[in-house]
Order: sequence, then structure tokens, then C-alpha cells
Amino acid sequence: MLRIPATLMRGGTSKCVIFRAEDLAGHDIALDDILLSAFGSVDPSQVDGVGGATSTTSKAAVVSPSSQPGVDVEFLFAQVGIGDQVVEYGSNCGNCATAVGLHAIQTGLVTPRAGTTVVRMLNLNTGTLLTAAVATEHGAVPECGDALVPGSVSRTGVPVALGFVDPVGRTTGRLLPSGHAVDVVGALEVTFVDAGAPAMFIDAGGFGASTIEGAREAASELVSLRRQGAVRMGLVPPGAPTPDVIPKVGLVAPPTAYTTTSGRRVGADEYDVSVRMMSMFAPHPAIGLTSAVALAAAAVTPGTVPNRIVGGGVASTIRLGTAAGVVELGTRVDGAGVLREVVFQRVARRIATMELFVPCGGG
Amino acid sequence: MLRIPATLMRGGTSKCVIFRAEDLAGHDIALDDILLSAFGSVDPSQVDGVGGATSTTSKAAVVSPSSQPGVDVEFLFAQVGIGDQVVEYGSNCGNCATAVGLHAIQTGLVTPRAGTTVVRMLNLNTGTLLTAAVATEHGAVPECGDALVPGSVSRTGVPVALGFVDPVGRTTGRLLPSGHAVDVVGALEVTFVDAGAPAMFIDAGGFGASTIEGAREAASELVSLRRQGAVRMGLVPPGAPTPDVIPKVGLVAPPTAYTTTSGRRVGADEYDVSVRMMSMFAPHPAIGLTSAVALAAAAVTPGTVPNRIVGGGVASTIRLGTAAGVVELGTRVDGAGVLREVVFQRVARRIATMELFVPCGGG
Repeated sequence: MLRIPATLMRGGTSKCVIFRAEDLAGHDIALDDILLSAFGSVDPSQVDGVGGATSTTSKAAVVSPSSQPGVDVEFLFAQVGIGDQVVEYGSNCGNCATAVGLHAIQTGLVTPRAGTTVVRMLNLNTGTLLTAAVATEHGAVPECGDALVPGSVSRTGVPVALGFVDPVGRTTGRLLPSGHAVDVVGALEVTFVDAGAPAMFIDAGGFGASTIEGAREAASELVSLRRQGAVRMGLVPPGAPTPDVIPKVGLVAPPTAYTTTSGRRVGADEYDVSVRMMSMFAPHPAIGLTSAVALAAAAVTPGTVPNRIVGGGVASTIRLGTAAGVVELGTRVDGAGVLREVVFQRVARRIATMELFVPCGGG
Repeated sequence: MLRIPATLMRGGTSKCVIFRAEDLAGHDIALDDILLSAFGSVDPSQVDGVGGATSTTSKAAVVSPSSQPGVDVEFLFAQVGIGDQVVEYGSNCGNCATAVGLHAIQTGLVTPRAGTTVVRMLNLNTGTLLTAAVATEHGAVPECGDALVPGSVSRTGVPVALGFVDPVGRTTGRLLPSGHAVDVVGALEVTFVDAGAPAMFIDAGGFGASTIEGAREAASELVSLRRQGAVRMGLVPPGAPTPDVIPKVGLVAPPTAYTTTSGRRVGADEYDVSVRMMSMFAPHPAIGLTSAVALAAAAVTPGTVPNRIVGGGVASTIRLGTAAGVVELGTRVDGAGVLREVVFQRVARRIATMELFVPCGGG
């Protein structure tokens, strides 16, 4: 039985168990085995562990101080299996990154300053550099706050400004992998963009529906469009099997008044671009943060489908109208017109510090 | 923000957060508010708290040492709301009681002895006295073990023998509230019994089906039979509205070979009586411990429907064939033929010690 310190955090709409790398060292048990055992993953209920038996509550991050210049904290994100013995490290999680940022200040990995403390984080899954800015008045570390995020969690938490630094071209080397601001796929106008993640944004008007929800219902071919997009973006060779998660794919449209999934009415003047993303094969309830980075990058790039919708130009604030509500983000573009950072107003909260009792017999 | 120590335990097939009463004192915030806030109950997802968003993972117990003679530990069980602001204290929970017993030894509330340590527990919800016996070799406190329970959790834990002491007649004052070992309701033979909880056991043979599962499918009227039973047992006056949970109601039949819900084949010689209980309005996946106490009491009482099935007499071990598998229990009957204790072989495990950060603004 291992005894391992950990912290249970809420980040955005996820629950995340944060470990310090040093607390996982000193024995020869693989990280996968520790996580699966700690979470009770052998059972779909995760009743014998700290897992919450849903994808948003079976997440972990392993954090360590960084020796790299310009980086305070490195972290590895882990999506821990539920009812199986699989841990996935293939992607970053913006919700957990938010929690990691607040955790770094709360646990002294980063010393709070008077005013605002910025944590510079390197995500080891993707190589992405992120920042987390937290108000630390007179150097005090906050435990609670009045910030909210759109989605399923109605309780407030500590406001955290989460920034994605230099997000452009990390997968393909280019902002616009096809070389064009707009491509035509079938009869649809599409923008391919690589920022945060490879993504494709389809003009919902091409489906002939009067609302974006109507277009989404008509868009049963989004998955096949994703496969075509993967080839057009150079992510896979023609004819090769395409992954289920990239590129991110979504519909965009001009803002109209609508009602969120939680029943709140949103006016057309409350946001700048309407978006509905696919998550794997189902509609995403809101929008993933990496998809939002991609949409922001497209929106500040002249001539793209999203840029036309927001009225051209380079906006420093963009409001995305998602099914769950409005996600606001800030953009920072340098003198050469390159997008250097996309910043989200997010929420995190420390739920509990823990000492986990982890059976070592596997499972 | 309150900071409150707590322990996350697995008891049987439930997760239970155990508080010490002294850790909840010293401020004037109501217990309900602390629990609802700690669990994040305002949201159905409980993402901002330690709740697991299911009935079996949204449970708490408040424990304190007892000054009553013959009692080591008192505990109050709480079923914490999910997506609402309701905490229910109307019943005991055998799974949490198992966890409370092991927790008392692990935290020093009860000093371990060489050999076996018995914790005597008073459940404050129901006034039930329980015992938890844990093997403590050379006085060592166990953290892991190789015990399993039938149901949804496949990982082993510490074996705990959970005893229900003097369970007879606690609600109605009588073992057989109707005064008969067998009553006839409609065309069905029924035994009403008050031990552990008020319960009624219906002879499945009366439904004319060849298996107990077939009888359960035929038994759409179990809920209306429960209402009739509530009156016949004197729990409610005729014509009054009847509660949804008492009496417990189930079908019993002689053992036959069957396959459990997890796919394991069970032979007719592996158990003594087949049982299928209703939980509220749906089939219970196995059997609640208080229902099992009632069934044990009926089985050792001459002439009842369950006693006929087990072949008469007074068995010191009874094996119940439930949909999830076989639940074995022991009975202790005194010289006057009175059932003094029913003992189950259960499992508990400490998952984590915690310090909870509990927002005090409600919710």
C-alpha cells in the first residue's frame, strides 16, 4: 500500500487529481499502475478509488518545477481509464491546466506576488506553453472567488486567466495548412487552421438551415468531412485511416439570439460568432479550449470563414456563442500580425488535499 | 472557507466520506450546509466537491466516541443530495457502517487488540446497535485485505464482519407484526417480519413462473402489495398514504442454478434461499443489508415462508442467492429462540485521508 499526497482540484468543468512528481518517485511502480489503482479504474464505478466514473472526473496531472528558461512548472496530463486499464496521454486538458496553475501558487511552487501572479506552464503531452494569471492581492493566495464558466457547474471559484502561448502551427508548421484562408469541400466553405490544435471550421450557411442548431442536425456528414479535412491539412496521407479526434471540426455562423442548454436566453449582441463543435462523434456541450484557440486564430486571420463572420479585422476580444453559453477570450497579436497568445477567463478551486492509500497489487 | 479533516472510505459497494463530529464543531454552520457544500451538491455533477454524483457515492457519516455503556462509537448516516439541497437522515446504511467500523480502528477511536478487534457502534438514525469485527493480528491495523463482496466492485479490501445486534421488533415491537408466520394477500403467501427493518417476503411460487426472475417480471404489483403490507403490519392506518420504502418487499423461492448479473454461474447447492428485492420502485441489484437481516430473521422462525424454503429449523449460516451473487450471513439465536445478532462478511478500505476546503456561502 503506497501512501501518496495529492490534491483534488476543480478546473473549469472538470475534476482533476494533481500529484507532484517527487511524490510519485522512490519506488519502481509505473505511473499508469499508480493512477489506475488510485482511481479504482478496474471497476466502471471507480467506487474503490478517487475517480468519479465520468470522463470529466477521471483526470490527473503530474506536476514538477521546471528547469527550462521561461517555464515555472511542467505538467503531464493523464486521462485515467474507467472500467479498463488504459491511461491516455495523447492530449492536453485546458481545465486541468487551469487547476495546475492555481495549484502551483497554492502549494508554493510559484511564489505569489503583490497584485497578479503569473504561472508559466509547459504541458508535456503537447509541448504547449501556457500561462495562468491569478489575482493575489498583497501576495495573498486565494481559495475562493466569484468566477463562473459556462457549462454544467454553477458554483463559483477562483478566477484564473489561462493563456495559450504561441499556439500557431504547432502540428503542421503553418497557420493555414492548405495555404488558403477558405477552401471548398463539397459545396461547403471551410477554413483549415492549425493553432492550439488542427481544426476545421465550416460555414453553417452551406447547409441551408436557418439556425446553427438546424445546420448541426443537417450535418450528419461532419465525421466524413473531418476525414477529408485530415487529408487536406496534410495530417494523414490520402487513403490512410484517419484519427477520430483531429482535426477538430465545427460549424460557425453569424450571431443570432438563442437559448443555452441550461435555459438562459442570449442576445445576438452578446457574442461575435456562433459555433458548434463535434467531440469525437457527438456534439460538444460547449467548446474545448484548444478548439477555441483555433477559432480565435482563424477569427483574427483576414479572409477566413470566422474572420468574415466577425466582420474582418483583428479583434482583441472575441466572444464565442456555444450551446452552453458565451465563452470570451482575448487575443494578443504582435506587430507582424502573428497571434502570440489566446487568453480565457477560467475558474479553479481546491476541493481537498489528500493522502491517497494506493493498493500496489495492480488494478 | 472551512477546512475540515475527513476520510474517504469504501464500504462494500459504496463510497462514504467520514467526518469526526469534533471536526464539525466550533462554528455555527448547519451540518446540512457543510455536507451539501463539501459534496458540491448544487450541481448534478458534483464536480465542485467530493461527491460522486450517484446515490452510492454521495454518502457521509459523522462519527464520535460514545459515552453510552457497551457502545464505542456513535455515527449519523447522511445521504447527501445530488443536484439539490436535501440531506436525508431517515435510514442507516450497512455499507457506511462497515466503513465506520474499520475507520474507528484505523483512526484510534478504538484501540486494536491482538487477534480480533470488535467495534460496537450505535447508528443514530435508527437506534440500531452494530458490531464490526476486524482481524488485527498482533494489534496491527490493516489497510488492505483479500475480501470481496458480491456486486459492482471487483477489488478486494479489508474483511469486516458486520453484526446487527438485537434486530428484532425495533419498529413494531414484534418479530411477526401480524401475529402469523404466514399471511395470505390476494392469492399469495406472505411473511411479514420486523427485524433490521420491517419487511415482507412473498412466496414467488404464487406467480406461477418457473424462475424467480420470471416471477419478478410477473410481479408488477409489488408496489401495491407493499402498500397493503404497510397496513397489515400496522405501519400506517388503513387509507393513509404509505411510504415508498417500508416495508421492504421481496420475492423468495427455493434455490435453483442461475447466472448472476456479472455473468457468474451459481449452482443450486451454493445457496439456501433465492431472493429478489424491490428498492423503491426498481429491482435492487443485490439486497440491502437491513433486508437481509429481515430475511435471516424470517428464515430462523418456524413456519414462515423463508423458513419453509430453507427446510425448517434454525440455521446458523444462511446463504442468500441474489441477482448479483450469494450473500452469506451468520445468525446467533439465544436459548429462548430469540435472534440476537445477524453477521455479514463485508469489505471496507481507506481510500484517502483528506482536508476539505468547504465554501461557506452555501451550495
